[in-house]
Amino acid sequence: MEIENRKAAPIGVFDSGIGGLTVTREIMRQLPDENIVYFGDTARVPYGSKSKENIIRFSRQIVRFLKTCHVKAIVVACNTASALALDTLRQETDIPVMGVVEPGARAAVRETRNGKIGVIGTEATIRSEMYTQVIRRMLPDAEVIGNPCPLFVPLVEEGFAKHKIAEEVIDIYLSELRKTDIDTMILGCTHYPLLRSRIMEYFGDAVHIVNPAYETAMELKAMLEEKEMAHPVGGEASYEFYVSDAAEKFTKFANSILTYDVAATKLVNIEEY
Amino acid sequence: MEIENRKAAPIGVFDSGIGGLTVTREIMRQLPDENIVYFGDTARVPYGSKSKENIIRFSRQIVRFLKTCHVKAIVVACNTASALALDTLRQETDIPVMGVVEPGARAAVRETRNGKIGVIGTEATIRSEMYTQVIRRMLPDAEVIGNPCPLFVPLVEEGFAKHKIAEEVIDIYLSELRKTDIDTMILGCTHYPLLRSRIMEYFGDAVHIVNPAYETAMELKAMLEEKEMAHPVGGEASYEFYVSDAAEKFTKFANSILTYDVAATKLVNIEEY
Repeated sequence: MEIENRKAAPIGVFDSGIGGLTVTREIMRQLPDENIVYFGDTARVPYGSKSKENIIRFSRQIVRFLKTCHVKAIVVACNTASALALDTLRQETDIPVMGVVEPGARAAVRETRNGKIGVIGTEATIRSEMYTQVIRRMLPDAEVIGNPCPLFVPLVEEGFAKHKIAEEVIDIYLSELRKTDIDTMILGCTHYPLLRSRIMEYFGDAVHIVNPAYETAMELKAMLEEKEMAHPVGGEASYEFYVSDAAEKFTKFANSILTYDVAATKLVNIEEY
Repeated sequence: MEIENRKAAPIGVFDSGIGGLTVTREIMRQLPDENIVYFGDTARVPYGSKSKENIIRFSRQIVRFLKTCHVKAIVVACNTASALALDTLRQETDIPVMGVVEPGARAAVRETRNGKIGVIGTEATIRSEMYTQVIRRMLPDAEVIGNPCPLFVPLVEEGFAKHKIAEEVIDIYLSELRKTDIDTMILGCTHYPLLRSRIMEYFGDAVHIVNPAYETAMELKAMLEEKEMAHPVGGEASYEFYVSDAAEKFTKFANSILTYDVAATKLVNIEEY
């Protein structure tokens, strides 16, 4: 690809469903000139309960699809795929591929003063200890306390994020973690940034809340600048959304969290890629 | 199959996941002598967002699997598969196949005095109007009011059925329906019997709550007796549980709702059937 064409090419972002829109939202905010192609694998969500073999197969199919959109870089905006498929995708792909786990872990390691880091996420994410492993590579003495919050995803997806029920569920899941002396906590699920202000309020100033969606957009920005791949300033960025099922529901949710108006989401038969 | 062998053969029950256990529970209660083989398609749950074509394909695979267990009858304990695949399965299968929608609709038509029937279920069930169609075939003038309650399934699955949060969510979803003059309401999702007492309390005596799981077990009992296929009285019934993914989580949930102790759930690669 010519350098200038490459700069104008979109960023590919994918997730198992709608959660990756929080990462997309941060990319839109921090890199307002970049075009984005988003793919949500809504037909095969959730990835957390699938085998590593299947996650790699799904991720390869999505990368093949995104490459037909001529993306210049790919963000794996899904914790499970970041943990299980990133190494494989990086080896097989000739464009940069980023995950969300490393940026989140890196920020936590940078922010912690006492080395005690909390991680909240889905049951699958916490059980896999994916954040613990990456944090320990960066800070071997870190103490990582994982805490699953399984109802957070449906609460957010069904529109209860701002309801007082969300406060009660936060208290049920996180009261024990709040009693520990962690000084940093990672929102280890792409849906959780939509509960961020409530969670920050619940923990207060003593705990720094790390949002991997924000950190990932920051690292993407640095990477594009370093590789001289950033889109030139000016013009209006274009955003395209694709899913493997239930396009209408996706569009509705996307419009509830993005400032950009998502007019239509296109359906892709991902098994064909 | 010999008549006596046929009587001793198990009942096959299947669902997209764990919800069908409420139907299984009713069969265990009302037909304590029957052996049961349960299959939960936990790898491909939820069915509500999948196409009719796929639901039929999935159901055929499960029927093929259940027939390897020599079942004498099959209960489709899943609203979506009952609505979309039952006719096809009945045409293709040489043993009786029952769904949950017809028994639920039949009971509502029998109970209603004013012909105004409420149906609560997942978004997919309500949008499909599957209960409305079946009720209208039985009672053409019936007025059916559908009301989706999307957070009920995750609430039940994450163990909040007896928590006060369940009460609040019931009030959020059902306050409008309570203001109508329905006199009968169908629990149109296999998870909802686990919220039954709370929902009954919320609606009070004026509304008869229909539990399709109970009605299905009653119809199964009548059918087995009529066809002289009922298991002879005596001996201990055996129960077997199979899933396509996440067997451990299934076992945990099964033990939380069944009085029978589920020691182990076996994993089946359903795509091979």
